[in-house]
Amino acid sequence: MNREQRDGIFQQAKEWVLEAGKAIRDKINDPLTVETKSDPNDLVTAMDRDTEYFFITRIKERYPEHFIISEEGYGDELQALEGTVWIIDPIDGTMNFVHQKRNFAISVGIYQDGVGEIGFIYDVMADQLYSARKGEGAYKNDTALLPLDKQKHFQEAILGLNHFWLCDNRLVDEKVMQHLVKTVRGTRTYGSAALEFAAVAEGIMDGYMTMDLAPWDIAAGIVIVNEVGGRTTNAFGKPINLLQKNSVLTCNPAIMDSIVSHYTVKGRK
Amino acid sequence: MNREQRDGIFQQAKEWVLEAGKAIRDKINDPLTVETKSDPNDLVTAMDRDTEYFFITRIKERYPEHFIISEEGYGDELQALEGTVWIIDPIDGTMNFVHQKRNFAISVGIYQDGVGEIGFIYDVMADQLYSARKGEGAYKNDTALLPLDKQKHFQEAILGLNHFWLCDNRLVDEKVMQHLVKTVRGTRTYGSAALEFAAVAEGIMDGYMTMDLAPWDIAAGIVIVNEVGGRTTNAFGKPINLLQKNSVLTCNPAIMDSIVSHYTVKGRK
Repeated sequence: MNREQRDGIFQQAKEWVLEAGKAIRDKINDPLTVETKSDPNDLVTAMDRDTEYFFITRIKERYPEHFIISEEGYGDELQALEGTVWIIDPIDGTMNFVHQKRNFAISVGIYQDGVGEIGFIYDVMADQLYSARKGEGAYKNDTALLPLDKQKHFQEAILGLNHFWLCDNRLVDEKVMQHLVKTVRGTRTYGSAALEFAAVAEGIMDGYMTMDLAPWDIAAGIVIVNEVGGRTTNAFGKPINLLQKNSVLTCNPAIMDSIVSHYTVKGRK
Repeated sequence: MNREQRDGIFQQAKEWVLEAGKAIRDKINDPLTVETKSDPNDLVTAMDRDTEYFFITRIKERYPEHFIISEEGYGDELQALEGTVWIIDPIDGTMNFVHQKRNFAISVGIYQDGVGEIGFIYDVMADQLYSARKGEGAYKNDTALLPLDKQKHFQEAILGLNHFWLCDNRLVDEKVMQHLVKTVRGTRTYGSAALEFAAVAEGIMDGYMTMDLAPWDIAAGIVIVNEVGGRTTNAFGKPINLLQKNSVLTCNPAIMDSIVSHYTVKGRK
């Protein structure tokens, strides 16, 4: 994808993201029917499905040669990340959407042959759009985000972490995670992976780690965090595979080695 | 305190809270000197001290007969909650103030002979003022907050909880807290007790629990949560004592008994 192509797709995608966000804001107080998916706390609403459908129909019409990976199942079934692939979470943080009517995001990542070219994370109710193009920096609305602090000390870091990983689970030793919590300065949980990536990109959290996320939760965030000098791997320091679920660590590189070598690798089950 | 007295103090206090908040916003990007207090993560800045001093000087001049309990030590040393007592946290969430430059609050509770009369929690950077007067409802800016949902199910609750209580600690059995996390729908950590009280009052979290807070962290929140039908006790269902540190549970009464009888009392050390 050359710069001209990237800019054209960026402008079109930005317009759709803002339009989809406005449609959600306009209906935010309408009555909701909430269904569950994989477990009683894995929620989905008509708004998730309608928003995904909004993107799919427009992408398929305007860019019939592009592919789509998306949460609610209207996308393509891909075996490889070849060509131009849109990776979409129509509402990231559906629990927040349902219970808080805020603190959720539209997440759209656009990849070319597996390389992240464009990312959008739209905090819909705050009307704050995080965006990035490969090699051109990251923005919050029209303000450029600063490079991450290269001097950040691990003991002064704030980490995003779901409480679940401090409880008995099948993926990581909770005792090791508890030790991590007691070593860093503070921990936060906001309930939207996309917004947690955005917080890392903005430098208001220094890292975000979780053990089990889908590609649409992270595709946009990876591009945006890259552009401020952050890194994203799986929780054990290995590359992410965007065709499957992954553990995820996105963070300031100054603290990445401490987390991987002293905690996650030791705690891996 | 009769209604006329309460209204007069409310208007004056509101003016000071907004003025103090504006002063913080005006200096939010100034260089910071951060010191530590009880431990390396217990932070304090000149802004905490200046903001407290702002309140103390004005209260002592305008209401010389009132008492003050406040975080940074410029207030009074009280043995009883007699008379009119202002309980002030100039910046609640100092770690967020330092690391995020947002997500902190000014917290001011005003009590008469131990009874909460007035509460203000001011999310300074979002410019959102939560306020309440006893018996007159709670507000977010000029919008009345709704009564809490009396039908809330415990399994569908979102709880505010610091990760620390899921780790080995001297106050509560972490295994019991881990079980609680796995039973409710979701958990969140925002890093400001005052804003977590505000979230409970707004119904976007159904409860907030922690094991060790000072009076200034909770005095305003108690008044505001009361006015939407919420309840605040210590974590074990007993009354709060605003002259000392307390464990705290503020929540929707529909889920309070489940938390206290099935979790915290069983886990108490």
